[in-house]
Parts: sequence; C-alpha cells; structure tokens
Amino acid sequence: MGFGTVGGGVARVLVQNSARIARELGEPVGVSHILVRRDMGGEYAARMTQDFSVIENDPATTLVVETIGGCGAAYEYTKRALAAGKHVVTANKELVAEHGEELLALAAQKGVRYLFEASVGGGIPILRPLRACLSADEISEVYGILNGTTNYILTRMFSQGATFASALKEAQELGYAEADPTADVEGIDAGRKISILSALAFGEQVRPADVSMQGITRIDAADVAICRAMGWRIKLLGRSVRLADGALCAYCAPHVVSLCNGISTVDDVYNAITVCGAATGDVMFYGRGAGALPTASAVVSDVVEALRGEKPRASEKWSAASRTCGAEELRSRWYLRAEDASATRTLFADAEIWECETGVAAVTQPMTERALLQHLADTPLAARLRVL
Amino acid sequence: MGFGTVGGGVARVLVQNSARIARELGEPVGVSHILVRRDMGGEYAARMTQDFSVIENDPATTLVVETIGGCGAAYEYTKRALAAGKHVVTANKELVAEHGEELLALAAQKGVRYLFEASVGGGIPILRPLRACLSADEISEVYGILNGTTNYILTRMFSQGATFASALKEAQELGYAEADPTADVEGIDAGRKISILSALAFGEQVRPADVSMQGITRIDAADVAICRAMGWRIKLLGRSVRLADGALCAYCAPHVVSLCNGISTVDDVYNAITVCGAATGDVMFYGRGAGALPTASAVVSDVVEALRGEKPRASEKWSAASRTCGAEELRSRWYLRAEDASATRTLFADAEIWECETGVAAVTQPMTERALLQHLADTPLAARLRVL
Repeated sequence: MGFGTVGGGVARVLVQNSARIARELGEPVGVSHILVRRDMGGEYAARMTQDFSVIENDPATTLVVETIGGCGAAYEYTKRALAAGKHVVTANKELVAEHGEELLALAAQKGVRYLFEASVGGGIPILRPLRACLSADEISEVYGILNGTTNYILTRMFSQGATFASALKEAQELGYAEADPTADVEGIDAGRKISILSALAFGEQVRPADVSMQGITRIDAADVAICRAMGWRIKLLGRSVRLADGALCAYCAPHVVSLCNGISTVDDVYNAITVCGAATGDVMFYGRGAGALPTASAVVSDVVEALRGEKPRASEKWSAASRTCGAEELRSRWYLRAEDASATRTLFADAEIWECETGVAAVTQPMTERALLQHLADTPLAARLRVL
Repeated sequence: MGFGTVGGGVARVLVQNSARIARELGEPVGVSHILVRRDMGGEYAARMTQDFSVIENDPATTLVVETIGGCGAAYEYTKRALAAGKHVVTANKELVAEHGEELLALAAQKGVRYLFEASVGGGIPILRPLRACLSADEISEVYGILNGTTNYILTRMFSQGATFASALKEAQELGYAEADPTADVEGIDAGRKISILSALAFGEQVRPADVSMQGITRIDAADVAICRAMGWRIKLLGRSVRLADGALCAYCAPHVVSLCNGISTVDDVYNAITVCGAATGDVMFYGRGAGALPTASAVVSDVVEALRGEKPRASEKWSAASRTCGAEELRSRWYLRAEDASATRTLFADAEIWECETGVAAVTQPMTERALLQHLADTPLAARLRVL
C-alpha cells in the first residue's frame, strides 16, 4: 500500500534478494497487488489497484506492507488488513506512535504480526535487538540521534559555522529536508520515534502527547562556537529514562554532548541509538537513518520474520505507561549562557563558568529543570541546553 | 557447565531477571545442575555435580549453558548434550569457530538449537541482527574491533605515547589482559571471532586455519606518533570481505583508520562491528565486548530464544566457504615507513609521502599485498600497515 520512495524500494529489495528470501522461507515471495491513488504505469502496472478491498478480500495475500504514511487511510487499511487476518509491516512511525498499542492488540487477537522495524532508525536494526537480544536485561535508559535532517543541519553548523537558517536551506537543496521542515526541525519526528523506542525498551509507551518535543530552530551560532571550542557537540536527542520511582520520562531536546560519548561523533544524516542495560552496559547502534533502500531493507526483514511464522514476543505488546513524568523533573547538568556575568557567578557559585564574547557561559551542577528555573528566578538567559 | 566468571554471571542474570524471563516464556526458568571440576560450595552447592551424565540423563533439563571454554571437554559435552536432545548455548568462540558447522548440523538433526551470541562482541547484539535483521540484504563486508585487550593497549599507546610492552603490562595489572596474553595480542582471539562473523554474514565459514592472524606486538611507537599527527588511529581489525569473484577473504591485522570512520573513536576495552550491506549501507554495533555481566546477558538472551521454540533460520546453518582467498590478494592502500627516503620516493611516485624523524612515511595507491611486496623487491621497510 503506497508506492512512493519506500514502497518502490521494498519492491526492489524483494526482487533483488528473492533467492536469499526464498531460501530463508522455503518458498518464494511475490508482490500480488500495489495500492495506489492513481495509476502510475511502469513494470508493476498490471498489479496496481486503487481499491483496497481487492487486497482485503484476496485470501492468497497473507501480508500487507503499508508505506502510505500518516494516520488517515493508513490507519483504516491497517485495521482492516489485520482484521482480515493479514500480517502488516510498516515504516509509518506516526501511526505506530499514535495507535501502536491498539494495532498490536488487534494483531495478537487475530494471530498475525504487526511489525515496524523501519519506523525507527531506517536500516539500523534496533527494535528487534531491543525485543530479542536485550530481553534478558533490565533497561534503564534509551536515547539517540533519531532524525537525520536535524543532525545534518547541526553538523553543518559545527563544521562550517553556518547559521541554522543557511544550514536548513542547504539541507533542502540537497533533498535532506522537506519544503515544510516543521516535523523535523521542531523535534516532532524524533519525538514520535522515542515514543516507539520507549514502548519497546520498557513495554510501556509514553504517548506522543506526553513526550515534550523541542527542536533546533533556536540553536544560536554563538553556542555552537562556544561548544566547539570546549570540545563538545550539540545533538538533538530523543531520550527515555526510567526514574527511580518507576515513572518514565520521555522527551526530545537538543543536548550538549561531550566528545567522550561516541554519539557526539555521529554526523551528517546518520542516526545512532544507545541502549543502557543493567547487565550489558551501554550498547550503541549506528547507521543510515533514512533513505529508500535502508528503510526498504528493514521492511523486508520484517516481512521475512512475519512469514517465518514466529510467535510474537511478550515485549511486543505494550500498554500506556502507568506513570510518566515531564522532562522538567529529570536531573542533569545545564549549559547556560548569560550576558550578566556577575549575576550568573552569584547564582551558580558551584558551576564551571568561563567568559565568552557576549558575557559568560556556565555548566551547572546536576539539577532538575524545575529547580533550575526557580533558581534563576527572573535572571535572563541567552541560552539554556541540557547536558547529556 | 563451568562456573567461572561467565557461568557465575549467567546464574546472576537469570536470578535478577527471572520475572522478566518468566513473562517472556510463560514459565519460570531455573538452574537444575552446575557441572564443576571440584566442589565449590556457595549458594549453589546443592546443585553442583562433577558428573556430566547426571545432566545428560536428566529429562527435565532441556537446555545446557556451556562456559567451560576450549575444545576439549566442552566439545565432548556439547556433542553429547545435543545428541541427548538438549539445546546448547555458549560463549565459547574457540569451539564455535573450530566445530560450529558440525555442532549446528547435529543440533538441526536433533531439532534443537546451538546458539552463541556471546561468543562475539560480549554483550553487543550482533549475531542475531546479522541472522534476522539483515536477512533481506546482501552483505559485502563485515569488520570490527573484536578484542578488548588489544584495543585497550592501542588506546594507551595513542593517548599516552606508551610502548606496546608498557601498555600490555598496565592492561595485565588492571586484569584486562591475561598472564599469557598470546591469544589476544597475536590476533588469535579476534581471528576466531571473524571466522564466526564471516559464517553468519555469508553463510560460509572461513575456517580459523584459513584466517591469517596478525597481532599488535610489532606496532612501533614511531608509527603511533605519525598516525596521531596525521589524525589517524591504528586499530586491530578482524575483517571478512566477499570479493568480486565470490571468494571470501577473512583475516585479522592492525589497520590504519581515518578519523572519518566512526570505528576509529572506539577506545579502551570497547568493541564495535560494522556490517556493510548493499541496501542498508554501513551499520555499526558498539558496546562492551567482554565482562561477566554483558556476556552473561547475551547468553541468557540465547536461553530465552531457544526456550521460546523458534525455528532456526536458514542462515544459522553454515558450510565451509567453497572458495577462500588469502589477505595478500585483497587490495587496499598501504601505510609504509622507510629510512631510505629517495628509494621510497622513486618506488612510490604516486603515493602521498611525507618526512618523519626516521626517514619518510607514505600512503600508497590501492594494490594487493602481493603486488606491494613485488614492487618493493628488496627495499627494506621499517613499518607496513594496511589502510582501512
């Protein structure tokens, strides 16, 4: 369903690797129907249809790949396909983030799979390792660079001293950013992905509405220059943390990251995800987060898994988190920049403080955002960023 | 079987995560017997036995974890356990590398699993993603930092300017290197691991005897200084490449790696593995490559997979590679250091050449090792390293 960049890539990967896939499954896999809005011609023209009920009512079609996107037709057709006893595989992070719990429950009820490896991290295998490989470990935190567009922009700001506006323009010219870049630059895309990762890592979802989403539009070139001089980077991270009281805190925000953390070196359109387990320690997964072929490859790996007839894992079901907590309750150190040097030195006597062109910059001791804001009272800041 | 660091860790991880594991499997998992060479006392004393036939003949024991190591008793007991219809899970890379093909075939014949996620990369999930997540992609190459001890030594040589001997001594004092460090520093441990990775990535094993293994004992502080100044690192990599003619080339050797490659920033005892797929591009997996708890966690994730009753994947079986080729046939650029500047400039007119304290260093155009050695004829070199 859908024959755009990802849908077309799925057809290509299926054809290119048909021998390998047939060997794995013991039988060949083919494309029976392609749902499109209007006829597109090309080599698959004979299989195209504009009528979903053709797919819904074809008993020989046992699996549907949804690459329509969004929560409209995709939502309706996914429900109907699952209800008709067909597996559904998707790259649609918006739908999974908004309705994953319901769709997984429906799939379980019908004895089929709803799989979405490609919805997070493109071609990086992350959801399946979270489910299967780290199943023996208690996970305390998961975070990552989940959006390639914003990572490209931040990389250009650091490497070229570009402003946000000019780096965005360059990303648009290269096709890395869409004409309307809102979902990327405002942290909405990364926020949806951390909602999904959180559900897989903890079995409890922080719904997108409870994920505070902050983007990179207000990152100032002055802070880029200061961080670069200090040997730091600014990265937009989606992050979900299990707090000591059991509540889950999931959010998306730009962070100051030290070069000691390997994730700081993840540049351009690459993505990386770090999972912190009690036994395994930190494990990082790194690769191309988007693109037709990586994403299609992840979709096809889900197709193989579903058709192999594996039982779903317990961790595949999720429920809404019983307790969530806002990012303002999460302790961390804070990077601050202020014009009023003496007020800053007085307020943050125990912080590292150094002079910069426009006043002072500081890194505080760990405290919650709430405590920080109370402590600041009315002192104006030029910049405030969480330190990872 | 075996109750050393890893075996004890497995018991701990099983107990600590028993609720999570029972939820996943729908029934609790317990430790019925522990095979030891002599009685060790402690909380598990009542379950210890020195007689393998007790385990072999207990129908209630459906899975055996082998952490004995080596190819002696471990080999015999693994065969007998599989023959008795029990799953076997291991962290024993030597046994998997030497006898994996036979043991996997025996497991398939008996309808049980032989799993060894912990044998490569400690707690990093790598074998299962290779089997499952990248199943839809054609893999062209896999390489990695597979040995934490040598990576620690190389990191100290770069960060402290330490010699190999003093860095090794420090690693031994910290418990990162064994009293007899041969298997680590001569590249044997990493060579066994690339033999296993190669089998999983390509379905064809390059047997350890066909993996050329070179270690780091001859890395000179002079080359460390030059590479550091050029913004490079030296990393011991295990690497397996599918050549254009279909042959597999697997070897272990120190490489000069540019800082542009994320694997150059993997320091200390960390491991990282990069898989290059036609569709997915490069995907890197990073984490702690050793240690009781990460390794035990990987073992327990295999225990869960085996007890879930999943069918083995086609890629889980492997055969010996039909065609292998020695590393001397693999083209790459070469880092050279020579005392005779003028001879080097004459021989490598198209290389990048620069002066160093003891003569010149150069990076050649891509060529095979065989071609390089022919070209050099009798010109003496102070150092020669492959460039990744």
